[in-house]
Amino acid sequence: MNISLEEIGQVTGGRVVGDDGIAISGVNSLNEAGPGEICFFADQRLSEELKKTRGSAVIVSVENQLFNGPQVVAANPELAFARVATLLSPAIAGYPGVSERAVVHESSVIGRNVSIYPLVYVGKEAVIGDDVILFPGVFVGDRARIGVRTVIHPNVAVLRDCVIGKDVIIHAGTVIGADGFGFVRDGRTSVKIPQTGIVQIDDQVEIGANNCIDRATFGRTWIGSRVKTDNLVQIGHNVVIGDDTVVVAQAGIAGSTRIGRGVMIGPQSGLIDHLEIGDGAMIAGRSGVAKAVGAGEIVSGVPAMPHRLWLKITGLIKRLPRLDERVRSLEKKVKELEKLVEME
Amino acid sequence: MNISLEEIGQVTGGRVVGDDGIAISGVNSLNEAGPGEICFFADQRLSEELKKTRGSAVIVSVENQLFNGPQVVAANPELAFARVATLLSPAIAGYPGVSERAVVHESSVIGRNVSIYPLVYVGKEAVIGDDVILFPGVFVGDRARIGVRTVIHPNVAVLRDCVIGKDVIIHAGTVIGADGFGFVRDGRTSVKIPQTGIVQIDDQVEIGANNCIDRATFGRTWIGSRVKTDNLVQIGHNVVIGDDTVVVAQAGIAGSTRIGRGVMIGPQSGLIDHLEIGDGAMIAGRSGVAKAVGAGEIVSGVPAMPHRLWLKITGLIKRLPRLDERVRSLEKKVKELEKLVEME
Amino acid sequence: MNISLEEIGQVTGGRVVGDDGIAISGVNSLNEAGPGEICFFADQRLSEELKKTRGSAVIVSVENQLFNGPQVVAANPELAFARVATLLSPAIAGYPGVSERAVVHESSVIGRNVSIYPLVYVGKEAVIGDDVILFPGVFVGDRARIGVRTVIHPNVAVLRDCVIGKDVIIHAGTVIGADGFGFVRDGRTSVKIPQTGIVQIDDQVEIGANNCIDRATFGRTWIGSRVKTDNLVQIGHNVVIGDDTVVVAQAGIAGSTRIGRGVMIGPQSGLIDHLEIGDGAMIAGRSGVAKAVGAGEIVSGVPAMPHRLWLKITGLIKRLPRLDERVRSLEKKVKELEKLVEME
Repeated sequence: MNISLEEIGQVTGGRVVGDDGIAISGVNSLNEAGPGEICFFADQRLSEELKKTRGSAVIVSVENQLFNGPQVVAANPELAFARVATLLSPAIAGYPGVSERAVVHESSVIGRNVSIYPLVYVGKEAVIGDDVILFPGVFVGDRARIGVRTVIHPNVAVLRDCVIGKDVIIHAGTVIGADGFGFVRDGRTSVKIPQTGIVQIDDQVEIGANNCIDRATFGRTWIGSRVKTDNLVQIGHNVVIGDDTVVVAQAGIAGSTRIGRGVMIGPQSGLIDHLEIGDGAMIAGRSGVAKAVGAGEIVSGVPAMPHRLWLKITGLIKRLPRLDERVRSLEKKVKELEKLVEME
Repeated sequence: MNISLEEIGQVTGGRVVGDDGIAISGVNSLNEAGPGEICFFADQRLSEELKKTRGSAVIVSVENQLFNGPQVVAANPELAFARVATLLSPAIAGYPGVSERAVVHESSVIGRNVSIYPLVYVGKEAVIGDDVILFPGVFVGDRARIGVRTVIHPNVAVLRDCVIGKDVIIHAGTVIGADGFGFVRDGRTSVKIPQTGIVQIDDQVEIGANNCIDRATFGRTWIGSRVKTDNLVQIGHNVVIGDDTVVVAQAGIAGSTRIGRGVMIGPQSGLIDHLEIGDGAMIAGRSGVAKAVGAGEIVSGVPAMPHRLWLKITGLIKRLPRLDERVRSLEKKVKELEKLVEME
Repeated sequence: MNISLEEIGQVTGGRVVGDDGIAISGVNSLNEAGPGEICFFADQRLSEELKKTRGSAVIVSVENQLFNGPQVVAANPELAFARVATLLSPAIAGYPGVSERAVVHESSVIGRNVSIYPLVYVGKEAVIGDDVILFPGVFVGDRARIGVRTVIHPNVAVLRDCVIGKDVIIHAGTVIGADGFGFVRDGRTSVKIPQTGIVQIDDQVEIGANNCIDRATFGRTWIGSRVKTDNLVQIGHNVVIGDDTVVVAQAGIAGSTRIGRGVMIGPQSGLIDHLEIGDGAMIAGRSGVAKAVGAGEIVSGVPAMPHRLWLKITGLIKRLPRLDERVRSLEKKVKELEKLVEME
């Protein structure tokens, strides 16, 4: 597929400088682009790469003399680039209809124009929306529902009764709707509390690979619209995540914690159960969050505290050997002073 | 399914107050319960919810005037509730026999009343006990053995020769019996040590989703009876976990470490290899355990230390900026004192 | 399979002491070995086990009087043992050819002597090398290429266009080539940056179970030769890992970070994006690495610092309660001194 630079200007709302008739067939990084490809320049440290790029056009925030070809001037070059890349990327490879080598229960309801690859399993009374793509090894449990245009990558399990929205992407190996970790102690042993709720994932969510999102004990574990999770993320039973929140790799959120909208949860962080995290909060990577975080707050550390305090404390921790010496020196001086004063 | 409140009293060993003839068809939370459903009340902070619940009956520890209907008074309401919920929950959906679309090696031994869903693979000389349920995508390796009534969820791999007990539940995506991480350095490169042992999982164990439990180098990695693991847990080769131990999400246990009985291992904690953890020990979330923990000890922090000490230290770390100021103030005062004393 | 001790001497470059004609059929630990089995002795703490072993022969670094049978004296007994174990271990069980119950696209290119188990999926124009073993549930995407003698365990997904080298082992449940976590903010929402690159895994790599190795935004995420990863490891888009590097369980490496050769990355450690880690560096378990690490450096802690400094600081942190007391005592003494000096 080819589009002209003029069209790229229109798609991105950018202004074209130079020949707007040239044809663009792909996107690439400054370093690796070749003829017919478009790049973006947003990081001043890459000036050298901009100068040397072999790409045919560049998206910039202000016209740049280092590049000798046509440019698209856009407010946010990376965002403009993402839009062009989306336009030029090949569609995800579908399958023509329902494979005979898939196993689709006769009581399920299958939409139009679906791609159900071989080796997929669709359970009783499951509902698969129009244009859905289910890759090999996908398991869709009884009565689960998959919204239109959703793409589910290989070996994902969406267990019974769970509800997946429209335009969702679920990457390979992820498990949606395993039982929450709910047990009651009876003396030394653990008695299972049946997990009878579901997982609900709203529209335009993207879930990374090998995630675990547990079903609720009652009601639902709920992932709001446009939430993005990275790989190996753990989301416990009855967690609620607000719209537009981002959860980075290997983070874990324990049961019943409620995350606001537009929250950023850093990699390898952990949130205990039954917390409230306000809208727009930011939780730095490797934080251990053990109490509520207010809207817009930035926290880090273990246990998590205001980010500025954490930075200060981190600096002081590194200077602990010096602090120890200072105290030792004081002890010596005070001893000497005591002697002197006593003598008098 | 409906049961009377009288039966619920019998099942839970509780005392019924009010109409014991009413029919209960399900369980729910105080908030979400409706007619025909029973809830439990154990957390005093939920008094408002108790007052407003639309459920038909409540399990309590002492009779409560806020609720206007029949009550079951039980020593441990949550435990009583778990037992009722188990009774009322629908059974896990089985499959009528061995699907023709499963691949079951002719040399395997298949028990009675099994549910082998389509797209399951059972290897040579594997043994599948009576009443076992294997969901689509399950792989059972050659000579592996699965005990009676065990349920294995979609896309789990139980690799060759591993032994799974009775009444075990393994959640989706988990890998039992991958090779342990055993290499010897030969100059710069790593030479693999063949991993010839197995994983043995005893009765009534429940393993979370996307866990990895590695096979032993020799002998066995051994998970004791009634152990419960949450999601994304890593258990290295030759680890031994005692009966009734609980391992919470994203924890990792390195090779040859021996965990006692009834131990609690918190989320995102890590235990190095070749440790001994005593019976009943508790390891807090996000701890990094680098040396032995005695029976009944409670540890936390990185490196892990007695929990009380960690709490104290955590408090002191937060006051490091203040400590730094105090030392600075002392330095100033001592300098002044030195001047004064010298002058004299 | 049986081999004589004489052959074992030849294979390991060791010197046989005692009867070199005895037949060895297997390897085991000192504790569990029986007749016909060989063990190794390298850890002096296991002297008692050496004395009691029922194994027929032992590999040692120097002749040892505690063991009463033939010995193989080798410079590195554990390495010698690994070589013998490799020789004596049964080969991984293959499948005779391409199962009719696998789904292999007609446009794919399949080598000689492959084992394609039932329930495998191989996409369009994929290339499967000679002697490759693909276990049930493996997904090989369109145009992906798998090098000769590579073994891929159950339920692994190798997504479109990815390239796997020769003699690679990939353990169960791993996902190679899911989309990198690339989004641009547009106001409150996240716009996906299409991930058009691939993952390239070089020869003799071993990847653990339930890993996630993301495809590059452009170009490739690249895992060098003989790299070994443990379970549940996360590797972001465009990461480059040099030859012979080892990544232990549950570690995470964020996008575009470049790891040198022969690096050791400890368990549960995290590396932020766009870092450079020099050859031969060592990153301790649970480290949080936020800046570059030079060749040969050893770092630990959060944020990571030189290992010696971290050890010192860890000790000081444990003594914070004492430091606090010392400062309090100084404050008291200085107050008294001030009084005394003022009085004069």
